[in-house]
Order: sequence, then C-alpha cells, then structure tokens
Amino acid sequence: MENDTTTTKNIWNFKETEKLVSASNLTVRSVLDKLTSCLDTADTRSVIPLGHGDPSVFPCFRTTPIAEDAIIDAVRSAKFNCYSPTVGIFPARRAVAEYLSQDLPYKLSPDDIYLTSGCVQAIEVLLSALARPNANILLPTPGFPFYEARAAFTQIEMRHFNLLPEKDWEVDLNEVEFLADENTVAMVIINPGNPCGNVYTDQHLKKVAETARKLGILVISDEVYAHLTFGSKPFVPMGVFGSITPVITLGSISKKWVVPGWRLGWLVTNDPNGILKEHGVIDSIIGYLNISSDPATFIQGAIPQILEKTKDDFFSKIVDMLREYADICYDKIKDIPCITCPSKPQGSMFVMVQLNLNLLEDIEDDLDFCAKLAKEESLIILPGVVVGLKNWLRITFACEPSYLEDGFQRLNSFYKRHAKKQ
Amino acid sequence: MENDTTTTKNIWNFKETEKLVSASNLTVRSVLDKLTSCLDTADTRSVIPLGHGDPSVFPCFRTTPIAEDAIIDAVRSAKFNCYSPTVGIFPARRAVAEYLSQDLPYKLSPDDIYLTSGCVQAIEVLLSALARPNANILLPTPGFPFYEARAAFTQIEMRHFNLLPEKDWEVDLNEVEFLADENTVAMVIINPGNPCGNVYTDQHLKKVAETARKLGILVISDEVYAHLTFGSKPFVPMGVFGSITPVITLGSISKKWVVPGWRLGWLVTNDPNGILKEHGVIDSIIGYLNISSDPATFIQGAIPQILEKTKDDFFSKIVDMLREYADICYDKIKDIPCITCPSKPQGSMFVMVQLNLNLLEDIEDDLDFCAKLAKEESLIILPGVVVGLKNWLRITFACEPSYLEDGFQRLNSFYKRHAKKQ
Repeated sequence: MENDTTTTKNIWNFKETEKLVSASNLTVRSVLDKLTSCLDTADTRSVIPLGHGDPSVFPCFRTTPIAEDAIIDAVRSAKFNCYSPTVGIFPARRAVAEYLSQDLPYKLSPDDIYLTSGCVQAIEVLLSALARPNANILLPTPGFPFYEARAAFTQIEMRHFNLLPEKDWEVDLNEVEFLADENTVAMVIINPGNPCGNVYTDQHLKKVAETARKLGILVISDEVYAHLTFGSKPFVPMGVFGSITPVITLGSISKKWVVPGWRLGWLVTNDPNGILKEHGVIDSIIGYLNISSDPATFIQGAIPQILEKTKDDFFSKIVDMLREYADICYDKIKDIPCITCPSKPQGSMFVMVQLNLNLLEDIEDDLDFCAKLAKEESLIILPGVVVGLKNWLRITFACEPSYLEDGFQRLNSFYKRHAKKQ
Repeated sequence: MENDTTTTKNIWNFKETEKLVSASNLTVRSVLDKLTSCLDTADTRSVIPLGHGDPSVFPCFRTTPIAEDAIIDAVRSAKFNCYSPTVGIFPARRAVAEYLSQDLPYKLSPDDIYLTSGCVQAIEVLLSALARPNANILLPTPGFPFYEARAAFTQIEMRHFNLLPEKDWEVDLNEVEFLADENTVAMVIINPGNPCGNVYTDQHLKKVAETARKLGILVISDEVYAHLTFGSKPFVPMGVFGSITPVITLGSISKKWVVPGWRLGWLVTNDPNGILKEHGVIDSIIGYLNISSDPATFIQGAIPQILEKTKDDFFSKIVDMLREYADICYDKIKDIPCITCPSKPQGSMFVMVQLNLNLLEDIEDDLDFCAKLAKEESLIILPGVVVGLKNWLRITFACEPSYLEDGFQRLNSFYKRHAKKQ
C-alpha cells in the first residue's frame, strides 16, 4: 500500500477552464444568482423579482389551456417519444413557416426553419456557425449578454455599437459603418428591445438592412419579444427586408405564450435570394445542429396546434396587461429622483433607467446599488452593467401589479435612506 | 439605383465554418441521413431501420403510462412554465441523486447532479468544461462518435485506445497508460457498451479506476444504457469506484424509459473526496451550463414521479424483449457467412460484427456495403467506420422481432447476390 501511494501521482491533470468561467460571469442569470445570495433571510417580506423576464410564475400570466392541451395530446399520442431530426420535425417547421409568413411579403418554406431549445440555443448555434479565425460580430450596447457570453466562448471578436436613448434606442448606424471591416460577418439587433423596451419602425429597419448590405454582412434579428408591443409602433419583422440583405430571425414561444421553460425556439433564414446557402452558412448551421441536442420531440409535436389554435384574446390580454404595467412603472419612475427614463417602453417586458449617483450618499455604482437593494429591501433589479450600460438599471414590469406597486415603494424607501443630505 | 449597385459590395463576408462541417460529418445521424438518401423509392417494402438505437417507434417498446402521466401532471400544475436554474430544479436533482444512490456504496447529494438536455448535452458540457490549450482526452475504439465530433469542435486532442473483442470488449489498459501524458485530463468508457453490447465486470471497472488514478485523470462513464443488461453480468456503475479516482457519470431516461425524444439527461459527479471541486472542474461545468439551454422545466418537474413510481415489471418487460431479440440477432448472424460476431451482446441495444470482404465480389468496404444494402434491400445498418472500426457493422436488435426476421432475410439475400463465385 505504501508503495501504491508513492507510485501514484499526487497531482491531477484536470483544472478549470478560465475562458469558460469568465464567459459565464457575463450572463444575466449568474448576476441574478449573486444578487439572490445578497438577500437578507431575516426579512419576512416576499422577494420582488424585477430582475428577469419570466412572468410565468404569476397566475395572471398563466399560459393558455390550448397550449397545455397541445402538449398533452402530443404526449398521449406516443408519436413523439423518438429522436427528432437535427433540424426539427417537419410538421412543426411547416407550422412555424406558415405562422411567420403572415407578417412577410413572401412565403417562408419549412426548410427556412430550424427548431432549437429556446432562443438561447438559436444564439449558440448561430454564433458557432459564424465563428472562424479573425471573424468579428457587431453587438448592440445595451444588449442581451448571452450574445457576449457565447461570442467569448466561441472566440468570435465582439465590436459594440451604441443604441441611442435620445432616439428611442435606434441603432447608431454611423458607428456600425465605422466599426465594420472585411472580417465582420453579422450585426445583431433585438426588436422589440431587450433591455430598452423600444420598438423599431420599418424605416429604421430598412436603413439597418441597407447598411448591412453595403458592408456585406447579415442581420441577426432577435425577435423573441415579437408582437409584444403596446405603444404606437407596430412590430415589424426584420425579414421584411430579407431581399436587401440576408436576415436570420431568432424567436420562440417563450414570451408570447409565457412558457420560457418549454424551451422551444427557432432560427429562421429570411433570404429570398439564397445568399446564405450559396455561401455555406446553411451548411454550418446544420453542421452545428448535428452536434447539438434538440428541443423535446413532443414539444415540437405540439407546435402546429399551439400556433394555429391559440385565440387572439389570449394575446390581447397579455399585451393589455403589459401596457398597463409599463404605464404604472413609467409613472412610478418619475417619483424617484435618482432614476430617469429617457424613453417610454413600447414593447418587450423591460425599461432602462439611468441612475444619478450624485443624488446618493453611499452608493458606489449600479452593482452596489442593486446588491444593497436586494439586501435591504428584498427587491431584485438588474444592474445596467450586465447589459453594457454602467450606472443604469434594467427594470422588468412583467409581473403582478401588486408586486410592482410594492417594489416601487421599496425602491423609494431605499432612495430616501441613501439620498444625499441637502 | 445604378449608383447603389456600384457602391454596395458584391461580396459577402460570411462563409461556412469548415471545422464545423467536418466535425458534424462524424456523427451517427449524418451518416444515417446519407444512407437514407440511398434508399430506392421504387422499393415498396418498408424500410428496416437497424441503424440507430431508438426503439420508441415500435408499439412493443412504448413507454409506461406512469411516465406520460408524470409529464401531464407537471404541465397541468402550471408550476413548471418558468425558466429552470442552470443546474436543474432541486426536486429533480434530489430524485436523480436518490435513484442513482441505490446502486452506490455512498449517498449522492442533489449538488452532485446536473440536468441536461439528453445525454448528448451532458457530453457537450463535459468536453467544453475540460477543454483547455493542449489538453487531450482518451476515447475508446469503437465508441460513440458524438464524443469525437464535440472534441473536434472544442479542439481538445483525441487519443484512441482499443477495446479488445477477444476479451468481451474490455479496455486495453496497457494502451491507455501508453497514450496518456501530463496533458491527459480524462478517459471515456461506455458501459453497457455502445456499439459493442458488452457489460464490464466490477473487477475490470476497478482496474480502470486504478489506472486513471495512476495517470491523474478522471473517468467519464457513459451509462446511458444503465440496467439494460440481459446476460450473466449485472450492471455496475463506475461511481462505485469514485473514491479511487473522480468519476463523472452520464445518463438519461432516454433508453431505460424508451423516450429519447424527451431530452432529459444528467451529468453526475461521483467524487466523495471532492477532488473535482478543488480543481475547478465543477466551476467549469457550471460555467458552461450558464451559457447553455436547459431541458424543458416541466420534464424536469416530472422526473421525481417518473423515477419513483415506474414499476419493475415495465423494466423487466423491456429487458426480456432485448434478451430475446439479441438472441435472435446472434443466431441469425451465424447464418450469414460474410459477418462474424466475436462476442455475444449482454447489454445495450447493439452488436458489432466483422465483415469478411474476401467472401464478397463487388463490395469495397463497410460504407459501400451499407449504401448498397440500403439501395437494394431497404435495410439500414450502420457502417463500423462511423464508430471507429472499418469493415465492421453495428446492428441494432432493439426493434419489433418481425423486422429483425425480415431484416436478416434481406441481409442474407444481399450476401448471396454479392457472394464471390466459387
């Protein structure tokens, strides 16, 4: 035995992958986990979660029984226990193509649709498919940090362009042109906007397409909040401009049906000129899907019924609630001197507000603000630095209104307690 | 407009990612897709699919109603429409820990369990977590090519050791020692074996653990076919030897419950000495899970009921069928001169047979054999080259027995038509 311990190594060859640990620090959920660990367990009040975009836990946001029934029918049929094809099952791809084509000037084919495990897997697939030595991608600031995390992991260079708060968070297209070079492969837009709650006009989207065309790049349009608009601007899918430049749309049932845990998303090529196929991008997408897991087959099996049978009144109820709660949120923000909102939200579930640290006595930055807020008030709000804007905050208004009222009361108490004395 | 076309670029910056397209060519499903495209559409007989391990399409392999009910209860509860935590929901992790602990000399904690979208996502997570510059991993030949595909993508160097057909496909441990160096981080075993249908004894597994300990590496034990054994050797989980060297077990409900499309797997640390945590491997695993999609939350929600309530008679029915069909398969192989089976299958759903090309007139290799077989007989069998053994075949016996009978009849006709004339 003595002999054994001397001949075996006392060191182990494996260790942590620093690239991975640092990439994952960028995500919303890792930061929310850290804030949750700041909560004071002695506080008997319930935690108010205004940090992330998942209203499914609130009874008023319960999904439609039609969607539940569709899942149950698919399970009971026993037709969907098998592995799925790499790209998704045909009836589901056809249903998504028909559903999305309603808003487009041309018809998508089932072959344009690739089903993924939520929109995040669609992002993973796409960034992996586009990564090659020296390639770079243009990302919005503020944005959705999952793009940054996957780009860091895939080692595709990131270049950031600004969204302009004074112009309803439109893309700074001059900056896009300035940043792009011959190694730029794509630019990302998120519409309706996360984290800003903005909605782009068709004029602006057309300019985005024309700029991308000029630069020889494709547009990745993250439309996970598609149709969740409640201001004066309607949702326009970027695919409308797919004949100007190739567009890849990302979407899911997560937000519109309020079922983010069902993990059913899609990656869609809006490319009537066939440029993506010609340039091998389709082969790369299928290549990555071949070495990835799929969304559960019976959830795919439920998709035709979910997309075709859900009644409009379910959606209008959701949109009406979002409008009302966004209004409450916008009004309440005005009552709190240390935060200002440059642009009233018109879509998605979020609003960005700027933090005025000059009015606060002992707050270092947005992270410090949110950590102390969690500890003292059991209120979770996302620090802006996570989405790329230091000393801003992202507030979710998609929750029960009583939580919103309570949350803003706590935010106000917090402000008063930390306000600089005159 | 003229001006427009001259100022816009006629080239596009994006193109295919060769690494990805070549990595994905290695997978079982891409090869099966190619074989499917060889099928003769004029052949009116049904296609006999002996190429992959998914018996869920056959009524005799339908899953238990208990599993279906568990899913339906989870959906109807509306408690699982939300996002899941990165590592999986607690009740499901606890249920998996209790389920797996039944076969171990120590108790797993829920913190040892990470839920994944099928076993393939567990492989993805683990290889991504272990990859660092110059790292290498030891993989079995023959093996499951998804490991090769993800290793190629992640750029972790692969070194292959042989399984020994004359020793019931045991690991050639001398070769493992010969291949390993200070950059080797892990070795993979698959038990019960895919593609060989073998089952390892506890003595052999202990030697695997001792060799790994000596080399300072961890053992990845792919146990997706756990408990599907029907010979003289019982299934022994590698975790039994987790105190000798750290073991990471991969598993899922896909095979034992015959629901591969439900996409619920797990990655489990069997490491009572806490070495993986100490060396940062746990941080890397969580890091990668943070930037990945999750299995559907309501499927996680169904896991406690599925694991706790499924009756033994369901499993014994499945195992009895596999035993019977493996026997049929083994007998039929003996009737066909150009294939020989070195070792009767005792587990999983597959058997490997060696092809004797000397007995065939116009067959170039295993790929050519399988392509012509698909075309002429509408029979799909996996060429051995896909799993690392050129001029072998992997045959699945997990299907309706009438298909097996018919399949071997077609294989025999094919042999006779292509046999070398005396």
